[in-house]
Amino acid sequence: MKPAIDFRSDNCGRAAPELIEALSAANTGTALGYGGDALTAQMQARFSELFEAPVRVHPVATGTAANALALAAMATPFGAVYCSPQAHINTSECNATGFFGGGTKLVAIGGRYGKISADALESEIAAAGKGLSHKSQPKAVNLVQATDLGAVYSVDEVAAVGAVARAHGLKVHMDGARFANAVAALGCTPAQATWKAGVDMLSFGVTKNGGLLGDAIVVFAPDAAPDLGFHLRRAGLVWSKMRFASAQIMAYIENDLWLRLARQANAAASAIAAGLEAIESVGLVAPVQANEVFVQMAPPAAASLEDQGFLFHRRGPDVGRFVCRWDTGEDEVAALVAAIRRSAAGRRAGR
Amino acid sequence: MKPAIDFRSDNCGRAAPELIEALSAANTGTALGYGGDALTAQMQARFSELFEAPVRVHPVATGTAANALALAAMATPFGAVYCSPQAHINTSECNATGFFGGGTKLVAIGGRYGKISADALESEIAAAGKGLSHKSQPKAVNLVQATDLGAVYSVDEVAAVGAVARAHGLKVHMDGARFANAVAALGCTPAQATWKAGVDMLSFGVTKNGGLLGDAIVVFAPDAAPDLGFHLRRAGLVWSKMRFASAQIMAYIENDLWLRLARQANAAASAIAAGLEAIESVGLVAPVQANEVFVQMAPPAAASLEDQGFLFHRRGPDVGRFVCRWDTGEDEVAALVAAIRRSAAGRRAGR
Amino acid sequence: MKPAIDFRSDNCGRAAPELIEALSAANTGTALGYGGDALTAQMQARFSELFEAPVRVHPVATGTAANALALAAMATPFGAVYCSPQAHINTSECNATGFFGGGTKLVAIGGRYGKISADALESEIAAAGKGLSHKSQPKAVNLVQATDLGAVYSVDEVAAVGAVARAHGLKVHMDGARFANAVAALGCTPAQATWKAGVDMLSFGVTKNGGLLGDAIVVFAPDAAPDLGFHLRRAGLVWSKMRFASAQIMAYIENDLWLRLARQANAAASAIAAGLEAIESVGLVAPVQANEVFVQMAPPAAASLEDQGFLFHRRGPDVGRFVCRWDTGEDEVAALVAAIRRSAAGRRAGR
Amino acid sequence: MKPAIDFRSDNCGRAAPELIEALSAANTGTALGYGGDALTAQMQARFSELFEAPVRVHPVATGTAANALALAAMATPFGAVYCSPQAHINTSECNATGFFGGGTKLVAIGGRYGKISADALESEIAAAGKGLSHKSQPKAVNLVQATDLGAVYSVDEVAAVGAVARAHGLKVHMDGARFANAVAALGCTPAQATWKAGVDMLSFGVTKNGGLLGDAIVVFAPDAAPDLGFHLRRAGLVWSKMRFASAQIMAYIENDLWLRLARQANAAASAIAAGLEAIESVGLVAPVQANEVFVQMAPPAAASLEDQGFLFHRRGPDVGRFVCRWDTGEDEVAALVAAIRRSAAGRRAGR
Repeated sequence: MKPAIDFRSDNCGRAAPELIEALSAANTGTALGYGGDALTAQMQARFSELFEAPVRVHPVATGTAANALALAAMATPFGAVYCSPQAHINTSECNATGFFGGGTKLVAIGGRYGKISADALESEIAAAGKGLSHKSQPKAVNLVQATDLGAVYSVDEVAAVGAVARAHGLKVHMDGARFANAVAALGCTPAQATWKAGVDMLSFGVTKNGGLLGDAIVVFAPDAAPDLGFHLRRAGLVWSKMRFASAQIMAYIENDLWLRLARQANAAASAIAAGLEAIESVGLVAPVQANEVFVQMAPPAAASLEDQGFLFHRRGPDVGRFVCRWDTGEDEVAALVAAIRRSAAGRRAGR
Repeated sequence: MKPAIDFRSDNCGRAAPELIEALSAANTGTALGYGGDALTAQMQARFSELFEAPVRVHPVATGTAANALALAAMATPFGAVYCSPQAHINTSECNATGFFGGGTKLVAIGGRYGKISADALESEIAAAGKGLSHKSQPKAVNLVQATDLGAVYSVDEVAAVGAVARAHGLKVHMDGARFANAVAALGCTPAQATWKAGVDMLSFGVTKNGGLLGDAIVVFAPDAAPDLGFHLRRAGLVWSKMRFASAQIMAYIENDLWLRLARQANAAASAIAAGLEAIESVGLVAPVQANEVFVQMAPPAAASLEDQGFLFHRRGPDVGRFVCRWDTGEDEVAALVAAIRRSAAGRRAGR
Repeated sequence: MKPAIDFRSDNCGRAAPELIEALSAANTGTALGYGGDALTAQMQARFSELFEAPVRVHPVATGTAANALALAAMATPFGAVYCSPQAHINTSECNATGFFGGGTKLVAIGGRYGKISADALESEIAAAGKGLSHKSQPKAVNLVQATDLGAVYSVDEVAAVGAVARAHGLKVHMDGARFANAVAALGCTPAQATWKAGVDMLSFGVTKNGGLLGDAIVVFAPDAAPDLGFHLRRAGLVWSKMRFASAQIMAYIENDLWLRLARQANAAASAIAAGLEAIESVGLVAPVQANEVFVQMAPPAAASLEDQGFLFHRRGPDVGRFVCRWDTGEDEVAALVAAIRRSAAGRRAGR
Repeated sequence: MKPAIDFRSDNCGRAAPELIEALSAANTGTALGYGGDALTAQMQARFSELFEAPVRVHPVATGTAANALALAAMATPFGAVYCSPQAHINTSECNATGFFGGGTKLVAIGGRYGKISADALESEIAAAGKGLSHKSQPKAVNLVQATDLGAVYSVDEVAAVGAVARAHGLKVHMDGARFANAVAALGCTPAQATWKAGVDMLSFGVTKNGGLLGDAIVVFAPDAAPDLGFHLRRAGLVWSKMRFASAQIMAYIENDLWLRLARQANAAASAIAAGLEAIESVGLVAPVQANEVFVQMAPPAAASLEDQGFLFHRRGPDVGRFVCRWDTGEDEVAALVAAIRRSAAGRRAGR
């Protein structure tokens, strides 16, 4: 049997060798635990340079932990967090926001391609009953960048949401599990993509784009979340050997490695999208702006792909999700496009 | 300035190179996320061999996470968990047990050297008001092995606590942040040290003994904690790239690496204890059976050590904690003993 | 100024004098606290008669407490509770379900008139990802009877939802804040309205229908929620002088008082609905089957009513909610209908 | 069989008829729900007069709810609350503080007669590790007034604890389940007993001293707990028909009823204490300063009392707790003292 070609997820992929090398390099001498070490201090400084502002970085085990802790720090136990229906926090994190927040409620609001629209946010807040104790109180907004449908907010779109949030006293959280892919796509600076557009905290994704076992929370607002360190510790999310986490994420941003990896993944996804353009019977669910391609296709066509050994996830009966990794090969892309073309053709012929 | 000699904590030390090599070796091809990969399956099998029984292993980021999730699975939100006053969950985990458990209460009970005694447990449960809804209900026991004062429960001592727990319907959790050190000291099998003595779940420590960024929960009772996977996911504690966690802890137990590392640390601590025996003015807080030495010493003697560049933590004004790592050198041990001897002599002379 | 005519809520109304008399009657001698008294035992027996089955009754302070505790007992912290978008737990209880449940998620699903449909429930569960740890796990269903739009589920409709729930292992909770109004409308027995149709727990409303300061949880399934007593105590929701709560709710069901009061309120609402039928420019949002009338009306007409001193709540710009109490008078009903007729006419004229 | 004489608890007693009359008087017309009514506003004003300062009052169902919500508002989820080992929150509220606080930890510290000492508090805070994220952070102090052993803090003792708390940035909560008994005993003003001595929030007990089904939280510091209303609502602890709660507690303080009732109970307890003085074989566990008497007595003497039909609770094998109600009769007191005298004598003779 031919080896499978894997488009299941970017978390199925390898780590970038640079990160493992950084672990080896950090493995010398002793260092104070829980983030009191020199490498962690250095990493903090590097991120402040990267974001052109003094930021605080908390490495954590997973993106879910980053999201839930950031939102718990921004909302109150009686608060509401606005998000897209497709947002990862809403669909795939098993009540984590509610758990960390002591009951914080997610309110899914409209938009296209996994985004939330500033107008929808405005209406929702207006009708939310601010100040009425019966009502979950508007406290924070969650943007996923790139979105869970593979699109990317423009900087202006982020700023528009940020402005509505700010006008009503809400905080803005960006779930950047695929932040690198978004920044690579936008061609802007990390600062423009975040705090300059009104983002207060960022879940800075590493794992999906060449990381191993860690992501990070980046805090922009100096007064946001003064107690976050305690909340992290209470949640069992502060590594004692922090230097190994800091070394990884420092290597990740060094020499623009993160953007280079993301560009590779984005390019693969673009190539798939381009290849599908000519195929009449399939469509795209959203514009392909990062490293994910959601393909509308007939169930038999999807099944045929599976039979041929392509690995991918279904999103409903007639949508397939194809995720490109930083190390997805051109041959893999070509093979997928060819197979979809064949499946589509076969399907037309078969009918 | 001479480089400091570091006895602050075993989490200040290096990772064993074997674990980093295992990461490199695992970094090939693609693998299903969240533990659905082949390496994780292999790791599960290896742990079942190690413990001579079918066990379930959940790699997690930290020992605090392991402890809190295991206890939350064993206790109820209205439950009480019995532990030693010195237990890590009681002194150093910032309310994590209460957070994960929805309010679970810790009840510290007596014993020597950081242990809890079976008799104290029996009395405490008898007076706890089982069935009365005003009362936190006895649900679980927490043993720290090796203890937070550097002692080791004998297998019989564990079994005695386990028997009391079982007789009253309580579950037994072992915090094995230094489990390797304890097993190395006991010379028994991992099975004898745990489930054969009545332990239901184990926090299997890796970090302090040559690990990097991960420990694990080991579930012995087949019906204990059927929902643990959901609780882990909800807590943001399931890595998507699990294979890298599994590879590490598999390397950790391969060829008895874990016990070899622990024996080195234990030997260093024993050498310190032996060296202190002849020094009249210092004493040991507890028998040195693992890799920690708690030294009762006059405050000026402690201050003098600090002045000489020795790094260690105080536990109160006249107790110093000296922790040996797997890579603590014989020269470091000798230097420490000599310095304590000098400080003690100087102190006598100076007065 | 003429006294206002009040249709704001049934919780703005008086208590039935019978309940206050019951308090006086219970105020004699001493009685064991926390429900260990004779009146409470008697009340338990009376409810078992009323429901034709051995039930357990837990008097609690509010309907929100009843709902949240019942749902927390039925769902898990990683669970999902299905409800109507209009359900009180979803719109008006300030994250209580999430708080009591440790993060339990509410999932609003479709239906008409504040109901959930069995078909929508079936589809939602099918797509929920049972067994996948990323996903909030389907655990319970919440039916509001009468609904938050003033309609009443038929017994068959409840049974249909109950059957779907049972088929998938979910529990069924009925929020009966207006249970009396529903039973009065249905003309069935309390048993037929609940456990015979698949309901596992009921929030038994008293406050809105002549009560003072208490509602109750009724547990039908003998093995449901064995720990509920502890959860109640932990939540500060067990009265020490329980006899005074038990006396009230016993008086409430004695001689069908509860149904008599509910019939009065229902009749008033029906009279309003009948009176509005002839008025062309207003409409009903849902069939008026209990004691609430949701009237679609032009904003100026609503404003005119307010100017005339009628008290009621808006539900959006062009919907007014008019709630009838057990003691809403026929004159109040007549005055309201006349005023709406005038407003509607004036509005037509005015344009 | 002679009717039992009941010293089990003050919550076994009757309500003061004045409170039930207040319910009847309040049962007229309609009133806005959830505390928006005129009676509640009047009650707020009356309490501000009583405490000689603008206070906020939140009626709640139980003292446990009052305690847990007040402490959750004062502490953080990573906080520690200092209390006496005998404190009700520590012994009898089934993890409520941890539940409401998201894991808040109780730390029991020394003192006499159920009090905490200012010195012990000072030492404990000094050793708590403020600012270290491993450590539960000192946040609040809980004083029980009168204490759970029947003693009363002097105003100076409260002020001493308050001063230590304030010096370290902690908030002070007073559990006043028997606040009336304490104020009656002290002969000071309510203001002197509370905020003038540094108390930030008070659980104002009503139930045990003639109430029915409600206590209250009194907030002194104007900036303390701005979100308490939301937390109450989220916890299902805001009554919709609030006027009936407000009417009760207003009646309770009207014309010093609360102090009159408390004085009766206190006098009964004093009479018991005086009667026991002459009996050699029994002793008092703590000075009898409120309405509880803890009697050290031989187990056979206690058993003999039980055999004679006296109802009371044991606190360990050789301590009996005798609680006087506002309506405990002089004959009941006399009968108890006589019986204890007989038991004691019989015991001496019998041996």
